Amino acid sequence: MTPQSENFSRWYLDTIRKADLMDYAPVRGCIVFKPEGYELWERIQQAMDKRFKETGHRNAYFPMLIPESFFQKEKEHVEGFNPELPWVTEVAGEKLEERLALRPTSETVIGHMYSQWINSYRDLPVLINQWANVFRWEKRTTPFLRTSEFLWQEGHTAHANEEEARQETMQMLEIYREVVEEVLAIPVWKGQKTPSERFAGAVDTYSIEAMMKDGKAVQAGTSHYLGDKFAKGFEIKFLDRDNQLKYVHTTSWGTSTRLIGSMIMVHGDDKGLAVPPRISPTQVIMIPVGPPNKRQAVIEKMDEIFFALKDAGVRVKTDLREETPGWKFNEWEMRGVPVRIEIGPRDIANNQVVVARRDTGEKVSVDIDNAVAAVQQLLEDIQVNMLNKARAFRDANSHTHINSLEELKAHIAKAEQDGTLGGWVLGGWCGNDDCESKVKEETSFTTRNIPFDPPVEKDTCICCGQKAEHTVWFSRAY
Amino acid sequence: MTPQSENFSRWYLDTIRKADLMDYAPVRGCIVFKPEGYELWERIQQAMDKRFKETGHRNAYFPMLIPESFFQKEKEHVEGFNPELPWVTEVAGEKLEERLALRPTSETVIGHMYSQWINSYRDLPVLINQWANVFRWEKRTTPFLRTSEFLWQEGHTAHANEEEARQETMQMLEIYREVVEEVLAIPVWKGQKTPSERFAGAVDTYSIEAMMKDGKAVQAGTSHYLGDKFAKGFEIKFLDRDNQLKYVHTTSWGTSTRLIGSMIMVHGDDKGLAVPPRISPTQVIMIPVGPPNKRQAVIEKMDEIFFALKDAGVRVKTDLREETPGWKFNEWEMRGVPVRIEIGPRDIANNQVVVARRDTGEKVSVDIDNAVAAVQQLLEDIQVNMLNKARAFRDANSHTHINSLEELKAHIAKAEQDGTLGGWVLGGWCGNDDCESKVKEETSFTTRNIPFDPPVEKDTCICCGQKAEHTVWFSRAY
Repeated sequence: MTPQSENFSRWYLDTIRKADLMDYAPVRGCIVFKPEGYELWERIQQAMDKRFKETGHRNAYFPMLIPESFFQKEKEHVEGFNPELPWVTEVAGEKLEERLALRPTSETVIGHMYSQWINSYRDLPVLINQWANVFRWEKRTTPFLRTSEFLWQEGHTAHANEEEARQETMQMLEIYREVVEEVLAIPVWKGQKTPSERFAGAVDTYSIEAMMKDGKAVQAGTSHYLGDKFAKGFEIKFLDRDNQLKYVHTTSWGTSTRLIGSMIMVHGDDKGLAVPPRISPTQVIMIPVGPPNKRQAVIEKMDEIFFALKDAGVRVKTDLREETPGWKFNEWEMRGVPVRIEIGPRDIANNQVVVARRDTGEKVSVDIDNAVAAVQQLLEDIQVNMLNKARAFRDANSHTHINSLEELKAHIAKAEQDGTLGGWVLGGWCGNDDCESKVKEETSFTTRNIPFDPPVEKDTCICCGQKAEHTVWFSRAY
Repeated sequence: MTPQSENFSRWYLDTIRKADLMDYAPVRGCIVFKPEGYELWERIQQAMDKRFKETGHRNAYFPMLIPESFFQKEKEHVEGFNPELPWVTEVAGEKLEERLALRPTSETVIGHMYSQWINSYRDLPVLINQWANVFRWEKRTTPFLRTSEFLWQEGHTAHANEEEARQETMQMLEIYREVVEEVLAIPVWKGQKTPSERFAGAVDTYSIEAMMKDGKAVQAGTSHYLGDKFAKGFEIKFLDRDNQLKYVHTTSWGTSTRLIGSMIMVHGDDKGLAVPPRISPTQVIMIPVGPPNKRQAVIEKMDEIFFALKDAGVRVKTDLREETPGWKFNEWEMRGVPVRIEIGPRDIANNQVVVARRDTGEKVSVDIDNAVAAVQQLLEDIQVNMLNKARAFRDANSHTHINSLEELKAHIAKAEQDGTLGGWVLGGWCGNDDCESKVKEETSFTTRNIPFDPPVEKDTCICCGQKAEHTVWFSRAY
């Protein structure tokens, strides 16, 4: 496997294939989510879905094919998505009268349905989420992060007024933060996207942004306040309590299988994956050690501990294959399993097992009678430690002292000499699109978001030096 | 709502829309699964997925778009599916070099991947399932039962030999029977499809078949032994223990959102839906009764019972809207909620509530202190009763005394006079395709399956009178 320091993207591609998470599909830009990769997605789904339902949302399913005319109804939306749409033009040899797009997102078809379902304030709010496959035919693809077909959830809600819709937008952003930080152990900045980075057709777009180990950013989730733009495009009107016919205010919000890629790029190292306990398909791997002729007693003891852990709700596996313990240690480290238990005849004699943690590499001996509680505590500790470690890395690679384009260029030039990309830079921004574009053109750093709670507030624009309206994260991004 | 006896399909379409399960989509033959309908699917998914995983299967996700050339690799397969395929021919204005089909099923693309993943007997068995949307552009569509796009699961497994693959085929058929009978309370016949009704490309197809209330059949799940046909088409070979290069033996098996439609057509009545407790999104609806000025005390008591039920794991809701109790009773009966609890000031004075069941219409008074246990028991009883009732209906409409085409025609003619379709008929079959076709042409009855365990064995072919090789269910079918 290529070391991270040598070539990060090569390391990433090596790791996800070696850990058996995916394979390339026979269609350009598409991948197969293999069971080890798909199970990560299933656990992300569970964590998200639970919170969606707790906040009153229900799932539904809308058709994947969207008539071409639907895209014309919201001008910015069609401009944003048209260059990436695959089209169904024929069925069983017959040409269709109207082309059908494979959905890139479902605001249009859902807007069309909502216009029929919503008549009165009594019908509001409508709080619906969809788990689905979507298509965006992009030029450059990276497994999990950017593929022609990917899996996601898209929430679509309709409200009687702006205030409620804006509350919803923020609530869902907070749910995203919670799942991504607390389950995936990825620290994020909540904030607002600049107008040029907004979702096509949104009034305001908010995001959570995460730093990968190469210093690049991933937009890990977005939540949009759409105002009445789609309501006007699709005539979604309701009779309010005051007997006035009004347009609804809508939101949409989404997270996708790119969370899998983010998790890998935040926690992985030269040994391979490192998966946080709360998301890991396997939390504990048990491996027998010591001479093969004493294996029988070891396996009996292992089984005891295995079932005790299983009964306590720990996702545990044993590896009884013929390979050497050393080979197995490497194998399960590469797969990112958070805890390894080693057990041999000498351990049994001492009524203990050796417990090794993936995140720090530490090994400790644990009394067998106390093994379940110790492992449970350790899994919690690892979860917390992985988030803290990722946050420390992020903060160490976030630069807040840069105040001009010259300083930014010098920072990047120096970083490149050191073989890095320069991490993230917090800069002031006057609010002018031209300054944003100039930074992008001259440095390849783009605005990530305007964090709600920046580490410091900036006074002057990093580009023009005028008064800053906003403090913004700049970086390279996936 | 149209009564069932007047026009069953009109009743069905009225019911599913009134109960808010679906809506028609703006694309031909597609529907929207609204939250009330989608939640039924989510519960079917949970019941299935749990059993798939318990038997060692894992989920994965394969690309939806399948290159045209893939369909050519298994001759029968392409002939079977070609007439129903939608094609992507262009992306963002550019014509593709090779057309891409929207998957109707995934044997081809999965076969292609398996040929790369499987090299040795150590790689076997491969036990993978996929939850996905699929497309079959059929001429006549019925919501849930037959739509252009639908949701399903498709299992695809590869094995070292025929015996193992055949065991898998039977195991999955039995899992389908278990979920459909025990969760959806739909009695089914397990059996083998005749060659003309086989899945395109299968060696043997097995099914579970269910009778709807109009006497028509629904194929509720299928499990296929594919032999080495796809292995040969896609070159899926492995080095066996004996050092010989061999083709794997594959299976596939699927159930879909048509189970939702089946559940409705098996249990529904002129009041609307009737949903078995194990699948019902809401199991208990609580409705306050009595004079509005005494409502406050009633609601407090209701809350107490509500939380006690919720804590016990019962899916319970209260209806505190302003409508009359009578209106609400009808509304929740129409939605098929299995148990209704009525509670008023007089009930509280007597420390009891009234419990009404949807399946029989019976009402009993239950001591409040015993309400939770009584409701839990009642839900179990309703589950069992609904299966028994459906089985009694099925058996009353299954005819085993018919031994010739003339008798079959007379039976159908008499049924038509009575305004029914004639239910199912058990007939002998010589095994000749011509006899099967003749029955179909002259009566519209098709072979459902050759039940493993028929109520009686037939000696002579219902068509030609020669010796029967098989005993077969014949009926009209969805």
